[in-house]
Amino acid sequence: MTLKQYAALVEEKLNELVPEEAQRTPSSGEIPWLLNNAMRYSLTAGGKRLRPSMLLAAADMLGVDRAEAMIPACALEMIHTYSLIHDDLPGMDNDSMRRGRPTNHVVFGEGQAILAGDGLLSLAFELMLENAMAYPAKAANHNAAAYEIALGAGVRGMVGGQCMDLYCERENIRDEKMLGYIHENKTARMLISPLRAAGRLAGLAEDSEEMQALTGYGVNFGLLFQAVDDILDVVGDQALVGKTLGKDAESGKLTFVTLYGLDGAREKANELKQRAQSHLSVFGEKGRFFETLLSDMADRAF
Amino acid sequence: MTLKQYAALVEEKLNELVPEEAQRTPSSGEIPWLLNNAMRYSLTAGGKRLRPSMLLAAADMLGVDRAEAMIPACALEMIHTYSLIHDDLPGMDNDSMRRGRPTNHVVFGEGQAILAGDGLLSLAFELMLENAMAYPAKAANHNAAAYEIALGAGVRGMVGGQCMDLYCERENIRDEKMLGYIHENKTARMLISPLRAAGRLAGLAEDSEEMQALTGYGVNFGLLFQAVDDILDVVGDQALVGKTLGKDAESGKLTFVTLYGLDGAREKANELKQRAQSHLSVFGEKGRFFETLLSDMADRAF
Repeated sequence: MTLKQYAALVEEKLNELVPEEAQRTPSSGEIPWLLNNAMRYSLTAGGKRLRPSMLLAAADMLGVDRAEAMIPACALEMIHTYSLIHDDLPGMDNDSMRRGRPTNHVVFGEGQAILAGDGLLSLAFELMLENAMAYPAKAANHNAAAYEIALGAGVRGMVGGQCMDLYCERENIRDEKMLGYIHENKTARMLISPLRAAGRLAGLAEDSEEMQALTGYGVNFGLLFQAVDDILDVVGDQALVGKTLGKDAESGKLTFVTLYGLDGAREKANELKQRAQSHLSVFGEKGRFFETLLSDMADRAF
Repeated sequence: MTLKQYAALVEEKLNELVPEEAQRTPSSGEIPWLLNNAMRYSLTAGGKRLRPSMLLAAADMLGVDRAEAMIPACALEMIHTYSLIHDDLPGMDNDSMRRGRPTNHVVFGEGQAILAGDGLLSLAFELMLENAMAYPAKAANHNAAAYEIALGAGVRGMVGGQCMDLYCERENIRDEKMLGYIHENKTARMLISPLRAAGRLAGLAEDSEEMQALTGYGVNFGLLFQAVDDILDVVGDQALVGKTLGKDAESGKLTFVTLYGLDGAREKANELKQRAQSHLSVFGEKGRFFETLLSDMADRAF
């Protein structure tokens, strides 16, 4: 299976979980049409579905039933989407366009966009808990998978990284240790947790060789992802990247490029690729998806 | 145990879970001090701790080990607190004071306040999942309790109610069915879920007499809470209520008072009290806490 094939499965399931709703006064226990459609607007705005696809691919690699992994995968995408909606708000990055469409708050208003984000985050956990209850014999695995996702998305993960990112930008702080924290937490953690969540679904112990390999790949792939993003900010095809070229570099944000220069950033990217690669050997032939993903990602930097 | 005694236990645990942190560059896996302290600012701003106390009292009533119930109780308060932080934002109610202190975004800025809310919601689920993993033999009960809290707080519960509340206020819609949805979802669901979550911790089946009684009490108590709030908005002691008197009524918001008049609202409150009361008989002497809570709440309306 390729990334596109996994993404198509995720797309289908997301459409099933949050279908378009017609306007009507909601009955008790119903999701109001407005909240539903505001969540759906951002959830179906495209994107590579990278995080849920990584979870599904890792589940396949580890022999986990794909049906069991589908809800955690979609939950990850809901959490990623909520973070984009909140990130775009006037009080945060104040972006009016994303992926070629007006951002959520431009269409639905600021208040409803805040609620659409809150709703997606809540729904992600609601669905994962419901899913865990649907597999009582494997409740511990499902719990542990949801916990990995909560950790990666939460105050020790993505939200923590966003907090320091916003703080450093506003206070004009440029510090290498801080940059490390932000990259690891804001970006990498949400790319590690799909792999670790799949490992938990498979019942892997923390100290198992496979769990350590999943984590090692995830950390280095996550940082590579950030390095590539920073490099493309400077030398990328604007239409392809889907954002204003040079925006991060010019805003005085700390990036791999402002810190190490373009050549240095490319060198770092290559190092990260090699390190991620080294963790795949334990999976042999079954690690093909992650081998390809790594090459495709690294190639974009050069 | 009284409400104040339960609240003191909750207060102590919240202080332990989110202690004050000194400013420093966070290390990997740490909550940044700024996010931590922004969450803490609102989490320790006082309040009656009604929802977590109800969960603890119901757990005691049903013979659940209080240690097992403490994290779900604190999670509920974190979720309640996040909803207040987001509610106060300029894009929502735009309130600059709450409980006699500047609101979160006034102190920390809008972006950090959004993240503090997102962080508290994430932390609530992270802690509940961690707690479920700490009681492997009772994982199913803990999962089901967390699910009740997710349902009450999420898109079919509180967030759904907030969405319709904001929509009706902005569009100047006054409709009795819509008011019912908003009251039930925005207010009552977060007062039902502490009881149902305790029921789940006790392993009660959905169709058991006790679970039905907990739900029935919760629904009617939740609506009574809203009726009392609406009545106090018109006739209350401003200092005691802690908000601007007549604010809701004057803003054209649908309330029990604007819909039924003051006498009509009091009559409704009395009906709701009677109905909630009727569900307590199954618990006998053990239901004393909820008996007292009900009287104290209803008394405020008269």
